[in-house]
Formats: sequence, C-alpha cells, structure tokens
Amino acid sequence: MALTIRQLASALELEYVGDGSQEIVKAAPLGTASKGSFAFLRDASSIKLLSETQASLVILPKEFAPHCPSATLVSDSPEYHFAQALELLYPRPRAIEGVHQKAVVASSAVVDGTASIGPCTVIEEDVHIGPGVTVGAHAFIGKGTEIGGSTQVYPNATIHHNCQIGKCCTLHSGTIIGDDGFGFAEHQQGWKKIPQIGRVVIGNYVDIGSNTTVDRGALGDTVIEDHVIIDNLVQIAHNVRIGANTAMAGCSAVAGSTIIGKNCRIAGGVRISGHLTIADDVFLTAASVVYRSIKKSGSYSSGVPLEETRFWRRNYNRIKQLDKIAKRLFEIEKNK
Amino acid sequence: MALTIRQLASALELEYVGDGSQEIVKAAPLGTASKGSFAFLRDASSIKLLSETQASLVILPKEFAPHCPSATLVSDSPEYHFAQALELLYPRPRAIEGVHQKAVVASSAVVDGTASIGPCTVIEEDVHIGPGVTVGAHAFIGKGTEIGGSTQVYPNATIHHNCQIGKCCTLHSGTIIGDDGFGFAEHQQGWKKIPQIGRVVIGNYVDIGSNTTVDRGALGDTVIEDHVIIDNLVQIAHNVRIGANTAMAGCSAVAGSTIIGKNCRIAGGVRISGHLTIADDVFLTAASVVYRSIKKSGSYSSGVPLEETRFWRRNYNRIKQLDKIAKRLFEIEKNK
Amino acid sequence: MALTIRQLASALELEYVGDGSQEIVKAAPLGTASKGSFAFLRDASSIKLLSETQASLVILPKEFAPHCPSATLVSDSPEYHFAQALELLYPRPRAIEGVHQKAVVASSAVVDGTASIGPCTVIEEDVHIGPGVTVGAHAFIGKGTEIGGSTQVYPNATIHHNCQIGKCCTLHSGTIIGDDGFGFAEHQQGWKKIPQIGRVVIGNYVDIGSNTTVDRGALGDTVIEDHVIIDNLVQIAHNVRIGANTAMAGCSAVAGSTIIGKNCRIAGGVRISGHLTIADDVFLTAASVVYRSIKKSGSYSSGVPLEETRFWRRNYNRIKQLDKIAKRLFEIEKNK
Repeated sequence: MALTIRQLASALELEYVGDGSQEIVKAAPLGTASKGSFAFLRDASSIKLLSETQASLVILPKEFAPHCPSATLVSDSPEYHFAQALELLYPRPRAIEGVHQKAVVASSAVVDGTASIGPCTVIEEDVHIGPGVTVGAHAFIGKGTEIGGSTQVYPNATIHHNCQIGKCCTLHSGTIIGDDGFGFAEHQQGWKKIPQIGRVVIGNYVDIGSNTTVDRGALGDTVIEDHVIIDNLVQIAHNVRIGANTAMAGCSAVAGSTIIGKNCRIAGGVRISGHLTIADDVFLTAASVVYRSIKKSGSYSSGVPLEETRFWRRNYNRIKQLDKIAKRLFEIEKNK
Repeated sequence: MALTIRQLASALELEYVGDGSQEIVKAAPLGTASKGSFAFLRDASSIKLLSETQASLVILPKEFAPHCPSATLVSDSPEYHFAQALELLYPRPRAIEGVHQKAVVASSAVVDGTASIGPCTVIEEDVHIGPGVTVGAHAFIGKGTEIGGSTQVYPNATIHHNCQIGKCCTLHSGTIIGDDGFGFAEHQQGWKKIPQIGRVVIGNYVDIGSNTTVDRGALGDTVIEDHVIIDNLVQIAHNVRIGANTAMAGCSAVAGSTIIGKNCRIAGGVRISGHLTIADDVFLTAASVVYRSIKKSGSYSSGVPLEETRFWRRNYNRIKQLDKIAKRLFEIEKNK
Repeated sequence: MALTIRQLASALELEYVGDGSQEIVKAAPLGTASKGSFAFLRDASSIKLLSETQASLVILPKEFAPHCPSATLVSDSPEYHFAQALELLYPRPRAIEGVHQKAVVASSAVVDGTASIGPCTVIEEDVHIGPGVTVGAHAFIGKGTEIGGSTQVYPNATIHHNCQIGKCCTLHSGTIIGDDGFGFAEHQQGWKKIPQIGRVVIGNYVDIGSNTTVDRGALGDTVIEDHVIIDNLVQIAHNVRIGANTAMAGCSAVAGSTIIGKNCRIAGGVRISGHLTIADDVFLTAASVVYRSIKKSGSYSSGVPLEETRFWRRNYNRIKQLDKIAKRLFEIEKNK
C-alpha cells in the first residue's frame, strides 16, 4: 500500500507542508525511520530525534514543525492521526462474509449477512450477530447473547449465554465473558454454589484483552461502559461496573461489586478489593493495592521500593518493628 | 418459572410465615426487590434495607423475622437456602444427552450414555466420562483422563492426559488442567526440560475458575481435595496440594510443591512461594505475599497502605532508610 | 518401559557403579523411591535421604557416591541427566503424522509431511509448518505465521498472523501469541486504537506456559530470544525483548517496550514497568515490583513481610507516618 503525502493529508483532514507528491509506504518510529516512512512526534521529549529523522513525513504539533527536516502534517493529536494513517496504509484484511462451512450455528441464531463467522466457531440458539461482525475461529457464543454491529470477536474467545455486547468492540483471543461469578454460600457440607443469574453488559467501542475474564453478575449485571479499554489477563469479578473511558492495564483485577468511575487509569498489576467505590478520574500507579474506596479524583499509589536484596533484607525486617520504633521515638520526645 | 411460597418452603424444608399462596417469580437484592421477588438477609448489617423491602419473601435468620414487612422463610443459613431457591426458580437448562455429531471422540473413549458432549469437543483415547457429565464446546480431554459423574466441563476448557477429575466438579472456560509443570534443569546449552510425569488429581465438588491453570506433577501428583473452590486466573504449580474446603480468590498463585491446609481462605492476588506448608484454617488477606511456612491457624497479611501519590513518594523513599533510622534511634536511646 | 542400569548409563554417557544388569522401571523422589526406581541427588541438602533410599539407582555428584546404598551414575549435572533418563523411560507418545481430517488447513499453507496437525485445528493461508512439528487440537495459526521444526503447539494455543516461531519450542495450552498490543491514542471521542503492525518473533528452544500472553509489536517486533522459558499466566506486552536463557516464573508481567537481559531469573508474580532496561544476570525475587531500570547484575527485591493481621495493622499504619517519623528523629538528633 502506498499513498502520497497529499492523499494522506486529505484523508486525515490535516494540512501538509512540503512536497505533497512524495509516496509514503510504511510507518516507523522517529528514530529509525527511513525514506518513504512516516512517523509522529508526541511532545518535546523526542525533539532531538526529530531533527535527525530520515522519515519522509512527520505528524507533529504545530510548534515543532520548524525543527522538522522533512514534510510535516500538523496535528493537535499526533498519535491519534498517526493511528488513522496506519489504518489507511495497513488496512486490515476484510474477513470473508458469511458462515464458514465448518462453523456450528444453531438454527434459531440470527446472523447478519454481512457478518463473518470463522471455522469451528460454535454459535448457540437465539444468538444475534449484527452487521459487519467478525467472529474468529474456535470462538463460542452462548445461547441468547447479542453482539452489536462491527464488533470483532477474535479466535478462541468465549462468550457465555445471555450477554450483551455493544457495537465496534474488540474481544481478544482467550477472553472469557460471562462465565459464573465466584459466589458460594458457606455450609456444613462445604461450599454451596450460588447460581449466577445476572449478565455481562458491555457498551460500544470497548476493547477487552487476551485471556481476560469478565464474570457475569450474581443477581444484577456486570457492566462495562462505552469506550472502556482493558488489557490482557485482567479479572473483572461479578457485579463490577467500569465507568466510560476508563483504561485498565495488564494483570489488574477488580473484586466483586466494586464500582469504578469514568476516565480512570488503572496501571498494570493493580488489585482492587470488592464492594468499593472509586471516583471518576482516578489514576492508580502500577501494582497498587486498593483496600478502601477512593472518593476524590487524583493519583494514588502503594508499594515499596526495589532494592538490592542484601539491603532490602535489612529494611524488610525493620517494617515488622515499625510500630515499636515509632513508639520509642515518641517516648524520647516526651522525655526531652 | 414460578413457585408459591408454600412450594418453595416445602422444597427447602423450611417453615414460612405469611401468605403461602403468593407466587414468587424472581430473585433480587433486598434493596431493589419488587413484588413477586424473593431476597435474603444474611445479618444485621442490612437490617435497614429489610424494614423497607418490597420483596414478597425474605429468607432470614429467626431473630430478624419480626422486622420483616413481607412473608419470611426462617433459616440458619439464609445464603445457602437462597442458593437452593435460585436453583429451583432458575433451573439450568439440561444439556442434550449424547455426543454432538461435530465432536471428535476416540474409539476407545468410554462416554456414559447420559453424558452430553458438545460440538467441536475433542476426546482422546481411553478417556472415561461418567454419567450426567457435560463437556462444553471446544473442550479438550487428553488420553486416559477420567471425569466423575455430574461434573461440568465448560466450553473451551482443556484437560490434559491421565488426569483424574472427581464427581460434581465444575471446570470453567479457559481453565487448563494438567499441562506440564515449570520444571527445567540448568545446563550449559540452556534450560533442559524435565518431563513432567505426574498427574493432576481433583476430588469431588471442586470448582475451578476461568483461565485458571493447574499444572501436572513432576514425579508425584498435583492434588486438589474435595470441596475446594478456586476463582479465575489462578496459578497452581506442580506438586501443590490444596486441602479440602479451601477457597482461593482471583489472581492468587501457589508455587511448586507447597502444601496448603484445609479450610483456608486465600484472598485475591495472594502469592505463595514454593516448598512451603500452610496450616489448616489460615486466612490470607488480599494481595499478601507469603515467603515462609505458616504453622498456626489465623489471619495473616502483608502489603502497604494506598496513599495519594505525592504523600506516598515521601514515605516510599524512607523505607530504604528504615534500617538506618532504626539504628539512629537506638543510638539516641543508648546515649540518654 | 524398562532399561537396565547398563543401558541407561550407556545412553546417558555416564559411568555406573553397581550391578548393571538390574532393571529400572520408574522414576521417584529419593525419599519415597522403591526397588526398580531411579532417583537423583542434587546436593548435600538431601544427604540424609540418600543414605536411607530404597532406589535401585541414584544419579549424583561424585562426592556423594560413597554414601549411596544402591547403584550410582556419577554426574556433574544430576538433574540434567535425570531429565534425560526420564525421556528414555517415559517416552512421549509420537503424535500421528499428517493432518487430522477434522482440521481446517488453508490451501496455501505449507505443512511438512512429518508434522502432526490435530483435530479442529485451524491453519490459515500462507502458514509454514516445519518438520516434526505437532499442533494440538483446537489450536489456531494465523495467516503467514511460520513455525520451525520440532516445535510443539499444545491443544488450544492461539498464534496470530505473521509471527515467527523457532525450532524446538513448546507453546502450552491457552497461550496467546501475537494478539494486539495495548496501544491507544487519547482523543476527545474516547480511546483510538493504534493498529499493531509489528510481529512476535520467538527464537529456538523457547518454552511458553499455559494461558500466557505475548502481544505483537506496535511498529517493531516483540522478541523472545533462544532458550527463554516462561511459566503460566505471564504477560509480555508489545515491543518487549527478553534476552536469551532468561527464566520467568508464573504470573510475572512485563509492560511495553522493556528490554530484559540474558540469563535473568524473574520469580513468580514480579511486575516490571514499561520502557525500562534490565541488565543481564539479574535475579528478581518473588512478587518484586520494578519501577526503574537495573543497570547492574545482581539480586533485587521489594515487598514487605507477612505478619499476623493484628500485628500487621499496627505497622501498616505507621508506614503512612514514616516520613514524619524520620523527620522527628532528625530533629532530636539536631537538638542534642
């Protein structure tokens, strides 16, 4: 695929400076780009790379344009327009419309004629698959589930019964949506499973990563609002609600019934206990553990520093004495 | 599905107070229940909700019955009886008996006539599938594995060769049972894999969550005893033993050869090192890291508080100075 | 399977002491071995078990041979030779060569005649499968991916398009290779997905555990070098590079663009942030969190001690006061 700078500028609705007839054939990072490549500059941190770039075209904020040796596209959101340009230059191959002959589709399922259903896919009774949906190989869609238009279900994803998936979502491989929540009643004869009769309801433009699990609700639903993005190996327990536009990075986890606000950013490995409320616009740094509700937007952290093991050991043991150390200090202060 | 209060009481073997002819058609939380719903009250913490509930029936401990505006079922274990009532009102659709024509079942496999084998399921040689077992779509059962009666294998679960699964278990989607343990010998030419010739042996009434992995033993077996419940994305390494009735929440992990006692409760995100022994009746709070054996029952924790990031930074850096701080304090005390 | 001690010694190219005509039929740990078993001794820590062992043969370092009541094979690498002996005594059943009739293989895919392709496997256009490769049931191999000779893809593994997998690798069940990295541009209308056009490139003799995810690169590639071993439920984000011979234990995770050196050992549950560089020969102890680059080889740790919850609570709260405690201490010192 090749586009001239003029074509690219026109498609992105941006203005270009430089020779519009040059052909762009690939994308590359600013520092390693060669002739025929396009790159982007987000902010001043890469300004040195910019002055030396071999890229034929750079998408960048206006103020950096004078420092660029090549043609430019000026943008307020360079990364956003870079993503758009990638879509144009690297178009995703259109999945073949229709149902693969090795798919197993129940007679009462309604599959739009423009949807693509891959080989060995299993679609149960009363499922609705919208227009332009792609369901990859080995995916499973349980009874009564609805999938909105243009959503992509990657190979080997599993979606259980009676769930609702919005439009333009991407469910990656190995993701499990709507399996039972971890609900058991204690009893003399051992744990008694509580039937999980709620659903998973997922909005539009939601992205859920590989091998992530989103459990169905116990009574009510587990809800993931529009524009939420979730990375790999994340656990969303039953009856959790994730507010619109929130991002959760890999290996994070949320226990049952916790409500997370809108526009939150949850870094990798964060753990959030159950039955909490997290406000809008909360940022949790990597590997934080959240035991309490957060009522005010802002950045929150837990965790301790990494040290060479031999130094760490000394401090590690002092943590067990911390309360005593504090009290002995207060004693000295009192007696002064 | 609808049942009268009288029918429900009779099925649950509980006594009711109120109009036994009322119809119950659904379940709901105490706070949002409407006419025709049943709910339950576990303890005094929800007593305010009880007095205002619109539920037609509440399952509750005897002492709270006088505060209930609706009909009641008195129970010592309200959550347990609530679970039973859910089973009656929301019966799980019976899977169709027999082997789906798109399943691949080896000729030497023995599948009970009352079992249900889903589409695209692969069952290898010498497998034994007991009565009433359900094996969902895309599941894989390796050579020689035995699955006890009434166990449910959800779509897309993988069970490797020569494993033994008891009766009345549930293995959720994406769970991997009996793949190789992480055993390698160091060698000049790189890591040499040690063949993992043990098995996974799972008792009865065990529940294993989505995308959880239970590795086979190196020489002996990995063992999960009766009534153990394990949530999603949990790692059970080779030669681990989990004692009866223990519960492990999401994203917890146990390294190789560790023995965990009975009736333990392991909260979400807990990490337990290898070659340890954990006593019976141990409770580990969320995200604890266990480096040493625990010989005495009780509750154990590690972890540090969540703070606003700007405050956290100050304390974070002090942890590296903790040993020095302690020594300086002791010096002051000595010189007083 | 049975071998005499003489046959075993000859196959392993080790010298034996004792009756070479004895038959060895199984492997066992030193402490529980019985007649007909072989075991191994790694070091002095199990010397007591050695003197009482019932094993018929023990593989051990030279200096311990005098303490062994049975026949011996002397080795500098007892665990390595034990692994070799296991391969001989417990040969893995050869998968049947050829393509299972229930597999779905695209017409342009090139599958070596000695490869084994299991039932319900889906292999897309332009895939290359080398000699002696085994692809288990339900595996998915995306368009254009190449798999080197003798590699084993376990049942239910998913490998996306245009990836490159070397020779003699093992990709365990549920592993997802080459799904999209977690790359999104912020925008007023919500997160805009950045197409991930890089690949995953995996060297030779690499082992990747169950339900582990390795994302494809954004622009460049995600690279896993030769002889790397990775356990279960591990997250490798886009554009990460893992150096040769490095080992990563279960539930560890590496965020995007981090470069990890050779011969590192990353214990279970370790979290490594993005855009860092970790030197060669770094050891990270269990559940460490790495926020900064590590330039010097050595052992590093973070984490706090496990305590009984009632004691932990006291120290836990003091961590929030740590900066103040330190300053009050310094104040006292100043005023002395």
